[in-house]
Amino acid sequence: MGQGKAMQFKSHMDLALKEAQAAADRGEVPVGAVLVAPNGDIAAQAGNRTRELNDPTAHAEILVIRAACDALGAERLPDYDLYVTLEPCAMCAAAIAATRIRRVYYGASDPKSGGVAQGACVFDHPQSHHSPEVYEGLAEEDCAKMLKDFFAARR
Amino acid sequence: MGQGKAMQFKSHMDLALKEAQAAADRGEVPVGAVLVAPNGDIAAQAGNRTRELNDPTAHAEILVIRAACDALGAERLPDYDLYVTLEPCAMCAAAIAATRIRRVYYGASDPKSGGVAQGACVFDHPQSHHSPEVYEGLAEEDCAKMLKDFFAARR
Repeated sequence: MGQGKAMQFKSHMDLALKEAQAAADRGEVPVGAVLVAPNGDIAAQAGNRTRELNDPTAHAEILVIRAACDALGAERLPDYDLYVTLEPCAMCAAAIAATRIRRVYYGASDPKSGGVAQGACVFDHPQSHHSPEVYEGLAEEDCAKMLKDFFAARR
Repeated sequence: MGQGKAMQFKSHMDLALKEAQAAADRGEVPVGAVLVAPNGDIAAQAGNRTRELNDPTAHAEILVIRAACDALGAERLPDYDLYVTLEPCAMCAAAIAATRIRRVYYGASDPKSGGVAQGACVFDHPQSHHSPEVYEGLAEEDCAKMLKDFFAARR
């Protein structure tokens, strides 16, 4: 990976981390996501809003997918890349597949609720009609620390 | 099952089938869903609207969950029952689990995209924090026929 490319990845994940922190400040589970358009522009960025919106589907990933699809006027986002601080759950993974997102970069793995590398392993079945490239462990420590601090403070 | 109960199930699935037909009439994949509150009232009913809304997450199940949660001002719907004409995909199954829905009745099984009885088998992993009771095959022939007719007409 060239240094320029690596800095770009870091900048996208830093933005996702900022969204996660903003979610924590709102009392939401601190997960943030950024969707990057094929030209490198940020198409959408969001943190969890399930509590604020009374919407169990309002995970960060779902919110950026819905926002970017709405803006583009399309149901699919091929060649878009998703950055998210936590391993997507089965709901978000299946939404990512339905949207045909090209690459998923995530920070911390999620043994409790993850649906990509564990549990439902959503992309690993023929019923998933698209498998994005998946890269895990980007800024993993920062992403995991934010979740740990949030839940520690609530206990 | 008593006859009164059986007629109630049929009436809920008939309503889901009407929503599926309305979806077909809009050019959407004909899947319909009905969410029933603990007191037996219809809390929400919807058909797919992914095309109309440019929203890949706008499956019938997600739409009724979002509508009922919004109306109730809650993120969870324990003791609510979902009727849907087709086996939920992994995205919808995980949303159903997150919402803590009590029972899922579905019509046709979905070898192509299903995520309940096949593929991701979303409820069968510890990462799914709730497993609803699942009843399949309710009005199966009608539900399957609607999908078959829709796709046959498009070919």
